[in-house]
Amino acid sequence: MSVSSSDSSSPERSAAAIIVAGGSGKRIAGAMGGVRKQYLEVGGVPVLLRAIRPFLEHPDIHQVVVVLPGDDVENPPAWLTETRVALVAGGAERGDSVWNGLSVLGDRANLVLVHDGARPFVSTALIDRVLHAAGDGGAVPAMPATDTVKESTGDGLVVRTLDRSRLWNAQTPQGFDRRLLVSAYQRARREAWSFTDDASVVERAGFPVRLVTGAPENLKITRPEDLEIAELIARRSNTSA
Amino acid sequence: MSVSSSDSSSPERSAAAIIVAGGSGKRIAGAMGGVRKQYLEVGGVPVLLRAIRPFLEHPDIHQVVVVLPGDDVENPPAWLTETRVALVAGGAERGDSVWNGLSVLGDRANLVLVHDGARPFVSTALIDRVLHAAGDGGAVPAMPATDTVKESTGDGLVVRTLDRSRLWNAQTPQGFDRRLLVSAYQRARREAWSFTDDASVVERAGFPVRLVTGAPENLKITRPEDLEIAELIARRSNTSA
Repeated sequence: MSVSSSDSSSPERSAAAIIVAGGSGKRIAGAMGGVRKQYLEVGGVPVLLRAIRPFLEHPDIHQVVVVLPGDDVENPPAWLTETRVALVAGGAERGDSVWNGLSVLGDRANLVLVHDGARPFVSTALIDRVLHAAGDGGAVPAMPATDTVKESTGDGLVVRTLDRSRLWNAQTPQGFDRRLLVSAYQRARREAWSFTDDASVVERAGFPVRLVTGAPENLKITRPEDLEIAELIARRSNTSA
Repeated sequence: MSVSSSDSSSPERSAAAIIVAGGSGKRIAGAMGGVRKQYLEVGGVPVLLRAIRPFLEHPDIHQVVVVLPGDDVENPPAWLTETRVALVAGGAERGDSVWNGLSVLGDRANLVLVHDGARPFVSTALIDRVLHAAGDGGAVPAMPATDTVKESTGDGLVVRTLDRSRLWNAQTPQGFDRRLLVSAYQRARREAWSFTDDASVVERAGFPVRLVTGAPENLKITRPEDLEIAELIARRSNTSA
């Protein structure tokens, strides 16, 4: 974090970031010698460290919380202890991990960003767009859907083809009014909602969520082949350690 | 095409394939020195040639039609004239190109496969799955959606988050009963339907469309970075010319 103020900083905007890396990444760990995906390196830098840095360096973000698998919180990797982040143990589901992160945030932040620890190529410009649009609800970076999307109910038959022009693939970081996100999550936990991203919790609680332009290189590393693509992006963007 | 019969061949199954490469690929051509994307090479082999070969070599497919931009039909690339394919000029929209391809098919085929010329990594196994499931309607290879998908109507606000467990990203080749596809297309053209894939025409005409398991490497080359990913796949699969 820069202590000096900057043009993109504003007195009323104070944000915290939660980086979610609480999963075991089973799909990829098996193929990569058991190393958890967030600790795998891309261009010589751990994926998780790449995912954290832009938040640590952003002038409007004063607190960065990293959610790790429980057993890793006591024994974190050295490159993580060298950074100014708070470590929190994750939960059974992604939503539990986010909730644990929210629970340790101070009152200072009026905005909170939630980011996947497996997305190593988030830019300062993208963080700015999300912070700017989060306002009185939430903001989600997204890319227009490029594939034709079919809906099916499980019997293998297509029910319908969705109107692609209305579809967006959501990315992270997603940004929210902090108190609003906490209150939406409280309701989600009480009523046992099932969800795949944080914005859908806020949507279901009835608050407005805006789309902002995502970034094509902001991929989530899930499968072994994604690591190869990430190496390409790292080489192209010339992002070094 | 193999003249000899094989285990996967059956007397009642006779298929034709339409490979659609009628577009100019503007998004990628500008970045690649003006060469149309279907003529760009991956691992030393033109993308379109890679897309065509598995159909030419399949024992159940007796006719392969390639739809090219109008001016290329008269002057096709040499590697294309060396193959046993029929060349047809494309139309204004993708649907017009498919229609032009359908118009030159003989009566022998009871099934027809429609494949994107920009998908260079289709396997024989995938073609088999599609032919097997096309039956009395259509079959679409698809992958389960991995991104969270948001629906928005154009004002930038999220209307809703779709239930990801019901969503599938469609690929090609898509397979159909030939006469049924022709009749569905006739109606689509008469009533000026708008659509992004062939299966949606058949769905809207009221016929059953089945999902079959797609393949992760069966990507469509659209953006310049997709070519780099394609090079990775070509190297990994060791598919040579």
